[in-house]
Amino acid sequence: MAQRPRLLLTLPFSLSPGAANHYYKEAGTKEERLMNHAVLAPLLEDVDWDLDPGPHAPHGEWPVETREEFMIVGAARLPIIRRACESGQYDAIVMLGGGDPGYIEGREIARKHRLPVTANAHAQMHVAGMLGSRFSVIDVAETHNAQMAELVVRYRMTERCASIRNVDHPLPRPVHMNRRNLQGQADKHARGEESSMLEAAVEAAVAAIEQDGAEVLIFGCSAAFWLQKPLQQRLLDLGWDVPVLEGYSCAIAMAKLLVGLGVDASGLAFPSDPPPRSRKWRFA
Amino acid sequence: MAQRPRLLLTLPFSLSPGAANHYYKEAGTKEERLMNHAVLAPLLEDVDWDLDPGPHAPHGEWPVETREEFMIVGAARLPIIRRACESGQYDAIVMLGGGDPGYIEGREIARKHRLPVTANAHAQMHVAGMLGSRFSVIDVAETHNAQMAELVVRYRMTERCASIRNVDHPLPRPVHMNRRNLQGQADKHARGEESSMLEAAVEAAVAAIEQDGAEVLIFGCSAAFWLQKPLQQRLLDLGWDVPVLEGYSCAIAMAKLLVGLGVDASGLAFPSDPPPRSRKWRFA
Amino acid sequence: MAQRPRLLLTLPFSLSPGAANHYYKEAGTKEERLMNHAVLAPLLEDVDWDLDPGPHAPHGEWPVETREEFMIVGAARLPIIRRACESGQYDAIVMLGGGDPGYIEGREIARKHRLPVTANAHAQMHVAGMLGSRFSVIDVAETHNAQMAELVVRYRMTERCASIRNVDHPLPRPVHMNRRNLQGQADKHARGEESSMLEAAVEAAVAAIEQDGAEVLIFGCSAAFWLQKPLQQRLLDLGWDVPVLEGYSCAIAMAKLLVGLGVDASGLAFPSDPPPRSRKWRFA
Amino acid sequence: MAQRPRLLLTLPFSLSPGAANHYYKEAGTKEERLMNHAVLAPLLEDVDWDLDPGPHAPHGEWPVETREEFMIVGAARLPIIRRACESGQYDAIVMLGGGDPGYIEGREIARKHRLPVTANAHAQMHVAGMLGSRFSVIDVAETHNAQMAELVVRYRMTERCASIRNVDHPLPRPVHMNRRNLQGQADKHARGEESSMLEAAVEAAVAAIEQDGAEVLIFGCSAAFWLQKPLQQRLLDLGWDVPVLEGYSCAIAMAKLLVGLGVDASGLAFPSDPPPRSRKWRFA
Amino acid sequence: MAQRPRLLLTLPFSLSPGAANHYYKEAGTKEERLMNHAVLAPLLEDVDWDLDPGPHAPHGEWPVETREEFMIVGAARLPIIRRACESGQYDAIVMLGGGDPGYIEGREIARKHRLPVTANAHAQMHVAGMLGSRFSVIDVAETHNAQMAELVVRYRMTERCASIRNVDHPLPRPVHMNRRNLQGQADKHARGEESSMLEAAVEAAVAAIEQDGAEVLIFGCSAAFWLQKPLQQRLLDLGWDVPVLEGYSCAIAMAKLLVGLGVDASGLAFPSDPPPRSRKWRFA
Amino acid sequence: MAQRPRLLLTLPFSLSPGAANHYYKEAGTKEERLMNHAVLAPLLEDVDWDLDPGPHAPHGEWPVETREEFMIVGAARLPIIRRACESGQYDAIVMLGGGDPGYIEGREIARKHRLPVTANAHAQMHVAGMLGSRFSVIDVAETHNAQMAELVVRYRMTERCASIRNVDHPLPRPVHMNRRNLQGQADKHARGEESSMLEAAVEAAVAAIEQDGAEVLIFGCSAAFWLQKPLQQRLLDLGWDVPVLEGYSCAIAMAKLLVGLGVDASGLAFPSDPPPRSRKWRFA
Repeated sequence: MAQRPRLLLTLPFSLSPGAANHYYKEAGTKEERLMNHAVLAPLLEDVDWDLDPGPHAPHGEWPVETREEFMIVGAARLPIIRRACESGQYDAIVMLGGGDPGYIEGREIARKHRLPVTANAHAQMHVAGMLGSRFSVIDVAETHNAQMAELVVRYRMTERCASIRNVDHPLPRPVHMNRRNLQGQADKHARGEESSMLEAAVEAAVAAIEQDGAEVLIFGCSAAFWLQKPLQQRLLDLGWDVPVLEGYSCAIAMAKLLVGLGVDASGLAFPSDPPPRSRKWRFA
Repeated sequence: MAQRPRLLLTLPFSLSPGAANHYYKEAGTKEERLMNHAVLAPLLEDVDWDLDPGPHAPHGEWPVETREEFMIVGAARLPIIRRACESGQYDAIVMLGGGDPGYIEGREIARKHRLPVTANAHAQMHVAGMLGSRFSVIDVAETHNAQMAELVVRYRMTERCASIRNVDHPLPRPVHMNRRNLQGQADKHARGEESSMLEAAVEAAVAAIEQDGAEVLIFGCSAAFWLQKPLQQRLLDLGWDVPVLEGYSCAIAMAKLLVGLGVDASGLAFPSDPPPRSRKWRFA
Repeated sequence: MAQRPRLLLTLPFSLSPGAANHYYKEAGTKEERLMNHAVLAPLLEDVDWDLDPGPHAPHGEWPVETREEFMIVGAARLPIIRRACESGQYDAIVMLGGGDPGYIEGREIARKHRLPVTANAHAQMHVAGMLGSRFSVIDVAETHNAQMAELVVRYRMTERCASIRNVDHPLPRPVHMNRRNLQGQADKHARGEESSMLEAAVEAAVAAIEQDGAEVLIFGCSAAFWLQKPLQQRLLDLGWDVPVLEGYSCAIAMAKLLVGLGVDASGLAFPSDPPPRSRKWRFA
Repeated sequence: MAQRPRLLLTLPFSLSPGAANHYYKEAGTKEERLMNHAVLAPLLEDVDWDLDPGPHAPHGEWPVETREEFMIVGAARLPIIRRACESGQYDAIVMLGGGDPGYIEGREIARKHRLPVTANAHAQMHVAGMLGSRFSVIDVAETHNAQMAELVVRYRMTERCASIRNVDHPLPRPVHMNRRNLQGQADKHARGEESSMLEAAVEAAVAAIEQDGAEVLIFGCSAAFWLQKPLQQRLLDLGWDVPVLEGYSCAIAMAKLLVGLGVDASGLAFPSDPPPRSRKWRFA
Repeated sequence: MAQRPRLLLTLPFSLSPGAANHYYKEAGTKEERLMNHAVLAPLLEDVDWDLDPGPHAPHGEWPVETREEFMIVGAARLPIIRRACESGQYDAIVMLGGGDPGYIEGREIARKHRLPVTANAHAQMHVAGMLGSRFSVIDVAETHNAQMAELVVRYRMTERCASIRNVDHPLPRPVHMNRRNLQGQADKHARGEESSMLEAAVEAAVAAIEQDGAEVLIFGCSAAFWLQKPLQQRLLDLGWDVPVLEGYSCAIAMAKLLVGLGVDASGLAFPSDPPPRSRKWRFA
Repeated sequence: MAQRPRLLLTLPFSLSPGAANHYYKEAGTKEERLMNHAVLAPLLEDVDWDLDPGPHAPHGEWPVETREEFMIVGAARLPIIRRACESGQYDAIVMLGGGDPGYIEGREIARKHRLPVTANAHAQMHVAGMLGSRFSVIDVAETHNAQMAELVVRYRMTERCASIRNVDHPLPRPVHMNRRNLQGQADKHARGEESSMLEAAVEAAVAAIEQDGAEVLIFGCSAAFWLQKPLQQRLLDLGWDVPVLEGYSCAIAMAKLLVGLGVDASGLAFPSDPPPRSRKWRFA
């Protein structure tokens, strides 16, 4: 800990330059390629970090939204995690990207090397638990909601998740090309124009607070990152002083915490292969 | 339903002829290649069925046991599910194999075609719920237990799963070659010799009943299929009249039930892409 | 299983010919007396079945709706179950009728004979769990809802039951004679007229989906059977592709599944009298 | 409350004078016929009370232990509850007897008259909740355990019930005649001899405390009433200062509390027939 | 029990005569100082009771509403509990006041003396559980809601609490002086004028019943006591026959029940200091 | 974040120099007074920190163990939190000390100033959740266990807490003076002698892992800090590769994470006084 932690930030996948929603770029400096870098910079100031572009479009040249796509991308990330672990160059790995593709499996791999791994949804849910009793997920598309619901269940967060609310601005995938999607919404907002996505997020968040009992808000899709500040401000203006979390920052902060404490994951939850001992598994 | 249901049974993967634990064979009649066919025959009598060998060893020439291996195999099965659905030749798909690799994703694919899909652990857990309040999983290896634990959680069965108990006879994977594994145990038992695996299963099952509150037993690994009858008998001899389920038969029976009722999966749990509507997701 | 399963379908009670809501008839062929036979025929094609009329109006000459009536009818059914088991003529018993009167007790009796028993609500809830995470019950009367709520709790389905929603078209019992009830609604719909019961069911189902988180719908009262197809279609037209289950078909299909697998109920959940062993009972 | 509350204590059933385990007597003063009267006397000092013998052996001339027997007895009690309510002579009804046969249905009947009804298991579980977080049931026979388990579930006490532990001294029913049962154990203890039932209760209670997490103990079968004091003392001697509750006293005390507060049961949980309003039912 | 139970009723705090919301008076007869005495009189008829004024304004000269204030008042009550226990003059202690300040700690102290202690919220929640499955809390201020939420959680009532609904008529504390508060609302109602607090309570209660699934209603703040009768009547007029409980009466009735049964609290939940034994603590 | 976070570490209380178990010292450098400083130093390297001695022995001249003592100390800490917040000198407050006295109330105070506050048990439980599904608490005394159990419940960690296991080496309080306590155990271990406390911790931890399902271990009492390394090593030697957390380090690391993310607590969970809005509170 005396020296600076060395983090590998790895994107879930990258697309060719011409692809729609080119958030996941393969060219440029690491800062240019890191969506939301301006906000993340202070968190990265006291660490050394690399950015890995992830596998190239294993599922197709568009962003990921279905469970099938998440599994394909997840499997494609695993060799990257393995190589990063084996390189000995990192103290922790941050698996960027909403929906956490390959996260549980990546942790299993990294466990052998005693390296902590974090991911967007997992980190946001844990930070949310520190701030209030129940969180809601503000997400962008019904199919993506289904993946987030899988994660809520897998991470045993059903007691803490008040709801997943959809703002219905899907990613620019082929099936969504002829309907409203999230493409261009961040720019609109940046230009001071009304963004239908932000308006929908305010509506979803208010419903999550007033009807579902949410005390904290998190995002399902990393491409919603730009909503963090304006959504929190809009809610505050309405009288709701509620934290709005964001995935990249939470995953980086959690990685730093784990490195600081010298822990990665329980060897009982992630037994080694072969395992030295075995025990009964219980759920309650 | 008037005509016979047409089922595709698909193996999780197949190995080369020389590989250890060659349960998943690529040669022979479908009956020869279907582990446990003798027991399954009556269930298959009133259906038409094909057997698909699954992807060839996408993870290596050994059986699957880690979460990483399950994800790799799961992703590799998805094109098979897609092709089977698109062929129009089947009324349902049975994804054979313990640990249910690719099952949730396979259901998402099949939903578009309104085809039911079943899998070993999922079907066993649902049948178990019909017979008693809580079940325990009798499983073969600590790493495999971890995958089963993922499934218990994902299938929202934590309230119903009393425990996962390990008989510690792992699959014949390279890491287990120099220790006790399940290779040869079925044959030993068939020859009338004592099988350490059966003995361990009796011990695990008794503990599950007496300490954990299990009222039904299921298997985690499909290669434990041969334990079903002897374990149930041994428990009965001890005074415990407890059902012992097996994955292939449950998955086939559940597929027949779903075909009979004309249902596959909820279109809300598996939204189409793109979805016509969206809703808030709740967990309690 | 090679031979056709022999099922006894037993009505919860029968009423005199002049009684209101004469769904439960004592005269006619078994097909005529089996409400919903047209839909059930394919499911019954590969089984041999008898229809038992149930006890004659043990509670009064009207349909059952209160907990008191359910208990009286339940107790009156038990000798029928006992005789059917002792006859050796059946492989399974299907206890027809919403509210499952006498079901748990009937299973206890049948367990001694290793006969599976199924019932409307129990079977629907289990099939619902195969299709989605949470179901709602669409039911006909507030007092009947109370009985359904008892069943949700007894069957340990509270985590899976999103809600019970009332369409408020009660059975034609004396207390409901001067208000809107379900009498005549099926005929109205069959004639192509608007049915207030169907409209109420659509409204209840939409609320269950949008507000309560239901992913599957089941019926509380068997007399709502005719709603299955039109309700599912209406919801699909609204963009909700949601399975609507029905009690008789689910109970028959589940009986066939249990016979196929050679299981009935756990001898731990239903200990014999006297029991060979005893164990501690746990609930979590 | 200014005047003394008038309670009807009603036995679950009565047996002919020659029957085994003649706890439920039809002759003698009400005090003589009230098992455990010596302990109950102070609780009854400030109330007026009658004792009703219950239905005469509706199930057979032996005590009740199976679910079938409980349902038959439960149904047979309902006319007594109805008549007691209609008589206008009582402020509350105490349905005596372990396993609470007919209790929920009896409450439904009494609700129309705004009369509170209490029962052994229900009252004990609620009083237990006032004293500690989790209780265990000390019960006499495996089949009786099964009925108690039904009650734990129906009363939504699964979170609070640490376990049901069996002392295996069943009631003197025909099936138990040739094995150890509870007949004579109270007398043995009263004579200062060692009682195998008390010894088994101490063992069960210690296991409930040390392994299951029980903080309070209750009895499943009312015939275990005499264990209350000696069991509590034995546990105290072992260092466990744990309350041991008993059914009759808890049911009487709870009836007095409800009369004192002028409440009986929620009209939403027990809707009137017909109900003025209807609502959605939720479970979480 | 033959003699009359001796109860100490102790106020949470008292304020100087000039303070706003002078519900907690230090002068007058005990009857005059006991808020809601008219309603409580019948419950107190068969007991001997004293009224203790509580600590004098340890937090300031206003009623308590924040968690900080509840803790300060709670700590200040403990010497009173200790002295009452040591005096040997009482059979039970009733800690009056919404929010139950110092209740758990007071029980720990009283346990050494085997004295039962009751409190408003705790007693209401337990009585509510006897009447229906789920209750809602009707409360007066958002900060007070937060304290009630702490109690719902601490008392392990999260499964039973449908919601806390705010009528937003806070106590007359300095921060609320320039906005609508509960001061004067009871008098308004008593004069036959419309009370905005009663109207808000009706609205909150209807929402709790129709949307949240409440079957019983309780109050968070003891100063809402006067709402009990009119709220219950208004709901009945709307078709909702729902019990509305009140804190003082429930706490007194529960104290009488505990004295009657000769129990106070489990010595396992409240171990003595030093404890004779130790055990593992479990939560499920 | 660019500048170093400024933390106030505040002890729960301090004792006079002559008091037993003088872990909480009022003299010396801050490093000398910070128990476990050697281990904490790396975590504190990149922050500015002060150490506050806490209130002087508000409960007596001995360490805190009962709920009464925790409440007295908790109330006595609140003015310190208030002053620290008002000073404007800190970015976060770390409330040191096992049992988290005054933590919830301290957070309420700090919320007004948007300052994060952390505490030993709360931080350990949240970090544990990042590493595995369920944790057990290794604690020192039965009365302290009771306080830890309160915290598990209040922090809504009952689903995640596998057990609290007692090593029965209480704090050197007057009641424990004549029995085995934790005094001197750390020194013994440091000298290479066998420590009965470490042996008891190994036994408790193994039971927690093998019987209770713990995947992570935390400490209840801060004075157990020195067990962290040797306990983890001993478990590893037994084949259990399980993280053992410690309170001070987790609380400091969590404070740094919250400062880094710019969050403190949800304004809905901790409403301001007076609050701008109000909402219904839900628990599931």
